[in-house]
Amino acid sequence: MSALDDLLTCLRFPSVSTDSKHRQDVRACALWLQEKLTKMGLSTELHDTPGHPILIAKNAHRPDRRTVLLYGHYDVQPAEPFAEWQTPPFEPILREGRIYCRGATDNKGQLMAHVSGLAETLRQEGDLPVNLTILFEGEEEIGSPNLKPFLEAHHAELACDVVAISDTGMVGEGVGTFTYGLRGIACMEVKVKGPSIDLHSGIFGGAVANPVTMAARLIASLHDAEGRVMIPGFYDGVRDLQAWERQAWASLGDGEPETLSLTGAPELFGEPGYSERERRWARPTAEVNGMGGGYQGEGSKTVIAREAFFKLSFRLVPDQDPARILRLAEDYLRSQAPASVRLEFKPGHTGKAYLMDPHSPLGLAAQRALQHTFGGQVALIREGGSIPIVQAFKDVLKADTILVGLALPDCQAHAPNENFPVASFEAGIRLNQALLKELAQA
Amino acid sequence: MSALDDLLTCLRFPSVSTDSKHRQDVRACALWLQEKLTKMGLSTELHDTPGHPILIAKNAHRPDRRTVLLYGHYDVQPAEPFAEWQTPPFEPILREGRIYCRGATDNKGQLMAHVSGLAETLRQEGDLPVNLTILFEGEEEIGSPNLKPFLEAHHAELACDVVAISDTGMVGEGVGTFTYGLRGIACMEVKVKGPSIDLHSGIFGGAVANPVTMAARLIASLHDAEGRVMIPGFYDGVRDLQAWERQAWASLGDGEPETLSLTGAPELFGEPGYSERERRWARPTAEVNGMGGGYQGEGSKTVIAREAFFKLSFRLVPDQDPARILRLAEDYLRSQAPASVRLEFKPGHTGKAYLMDPHSPLGLAAQRALQHTFGGQVALIREGGSIPIVQAFKDVLKADTILVGLALPDCQAHAPNENFPVASFEAGIRLNQALLKELAQA
Repeated sequence: MSALDDLLTCLRFPSVSTDSKHRQDVRACALWLQEKLTKMGLSTELHDTPGHPILIAKNAHRPDRRTVLLYGHYDVQPAEPFAEWQTPPFEPILREGRIYCRGATDNKGQLMAHVSGLAETLRQEGDLPVNLTILFEGEEEIGSPNLKPFLEAHHAELACDVVAISDTGMVGEGVGTFTYGLRGIACMEVKVKGPSIDLHSGIFGGAVANPVTMAARLIASLHDAEGRVMIPGFYDGVRDLQAWERQAWASLGDGEPETLSLTGAPELFGEPGYSERERRWARPTAEVNGMGGGYQGEGSKTVIAREAFFKLSFRLVPDQDPARILRLAEDYLRSQAPASVRLEFKPGHTGKAYLMDPHSPLGLAAQRALQHTFGGQVALIREGGSIPIVQAFKDVLKADTILVGLALPDCQAHAPNENFPVASFEAGIRLNQALLKELAQA
Repeated sequence: MSALDDLLTCLRFPSVSTDSKHRQDVRACALWLQEKLTKMGLSTELHDTPGHPILIAKNAHRPDRRTVLLYGHYDVQPAEPFAEWQTPPFEPILREGRIYCRGATDNKGQLMAHVSGLAETLRQEGDLPVNLTILFEGEEEIGSPNLKPFLEAHHAELACDVVAISDTGMVGEGVGTFTYGLRGIACMEVKVKGPSIDLHSGIFGGAVANPVTMAARLIASLHDAEGRVMIPGFYDGVRDLQAWERQAWASLGDGEPETLSLTGAPELFGEPGYSERERRWARPTAEVNGMGGGYQGEGSKTVIAREAFFKLSFRLVPDQDPARILRLAEDYLRSQAPASVRLEFKPGHTGKAYLMDPHSPLGLAAQRALQHTFGGQVALIREGGSIPIVQAFKDVLKADTILVGLALPDCQAHAPNENFPVASFEAGIRLNQALLKELAQA
């Protein structure tokens, strides 16, 4: 059985975690992985959770070796809309050097590359160079609701020196990419309430404050005309970009054409003084994710709505504290609202930004492994999104995470015709072997 | 058969114009009215339309008399929500001096008061003091879609000197109220488009303009902090309130407590320098009737939406031109938007403001009739809403409209437990008689 055959088998499980009719498929995929890892000589345990199972596998741990926790997820996004797939979403097919299937990139291709790398090392060496703990979950695509409780309940047996994950992106084909930072997040919902009932805008228009207008004014007050966040204290404690980072990111070339092409935006926009990459990876933002109030249907209805809402998310960078940001935002918005409306705030989920030092011994080890695998210059990047599991590993296991992802911008993760280059899969196998070797010696 | 019995009979028809299952009830009500008017000695014609019928009735017209067109509507709003009615909505009941039934105020109570006034005069005098043309329609509650075409097709036979309508409000019980002005309207919808797809706010937040934020900024740019409209030229040609109007409205007492109580707003808000009544009746406004963009569901979804929309309506006063206002608004909003978003405008319906001179001979006649009916001081008011039929009469028949409505603020028009005081009904009968007499002599 070749590594590629194993990947194709894994891909055929329609392990859609969000869809209860696929519950048994998710479990079947976990059981297949368990059997695979057991056959490789690892000791395995399948842990049931209120949702989908968590699979743990280990080699024999020895106190004189570094311990690495390898994380991955075997669940996938739904395949909808089916009509946009060129081939059936759960029948993997090889076309022009790529494997097309739901989950090919996210995350089965990357997960199985690691599994095959481990199998290869075990076959060649009889053991791994580190104490390895595998943690594969089946709920990443639904927000990993049972992962943190599981980490807390099993923190002793999951203790490790470092976590390794391949579930992020590469800046380009064949360019080894090390993600050493992620932005944090803080969400809130704001309700703006005025009259006790919807009003006729003819009879009452001009006499009362319109909650939709007032909500819009609050949103408008969040930024200056150029895009700087206006909340007093928002930028306090924001760590400046370091010279080497700005240089490293600039060396990746001008990011604007790619971002324009990926977004389709008429032109870019944002905080002056920073490149678009710096704004996305290392600067905090305030974004309205949704806003609504009043009549939403066709045509017109001349109403002054009794209330409006907006949903905000702040992307945070070191060393912003999410709870403090929500407090500052609430104080600021309250100060901006006239007495003719009442505000209600509902805090949402939060997560701190993540940053590790890529020049630390473990960071340098990861760079050597990428260099060994891909050759050329290793790209040192941050990403603008938030990966809550990385924060969970930091919080519960006190371990940093090495993010060495293999996804390319055109791999269509979460979209129809998801795919993964066979070359990336093969590189991932080599990366796993090099990474464990380098981490063992770092 | 007493006048009150006739009203109760008329109220029992569930003539809900918007509900196709009540189509025959609407027609039955029209036929009953036709029979009633025919028996009174008027010549009648029921005109079918693509919707509900229009009933025309006339006495014998003579060239030496003034011609008055009396308008009313026999259709009613739906009764929903049924559970909030204390008694069945189409079984009229007398309780504490008021008649409770859907349509009691709007408009059957007022329409039947006129019918009974005419019957009384015909019985006493054998004829009316004017050439009368009755036009009762069955589609007012659905926007009178067939009225204007009907006026155009029959403009010669509907020619008149003045239109009289009782379908507006009184400032208080027993206070004769003459509405001599209405605001106009101009509607538009604006779409703010940015990226070609919804974006992940983590990956792209900070690099592109957020269409929801930009829509909010456009809405915020419509007014200054105190509520003045900021569109250049918006107030050009707005007729100043005249000294007698400000004085007449001030003499009605402080309107703020009532408006606060009716709206439930925490406090009032609006253009400085004008009382709340002046702002509602005689000052133009820009109101957002609806706004939406991005995630509308529970919780959070960290998305930058590809587009947002908002729906605006401007309430207009003499001599603002609706088409010009829409043009100015579009120009202004385009000037406020950055190049990072694209705007799309969709104009909606428009209608000019209406204003007649209450001190003209016909206006003074209406005031004398109100004075005769109610005694005391006649309230001269404008209303903030727009009544398209008044504009249609002006446009097609070139006639002004005398608005002498009998609705009280607590009559619950359009709401459950709609009601009409018997005293108002009886006053309406006297008003009809006095009004025709005064208009004949003016």
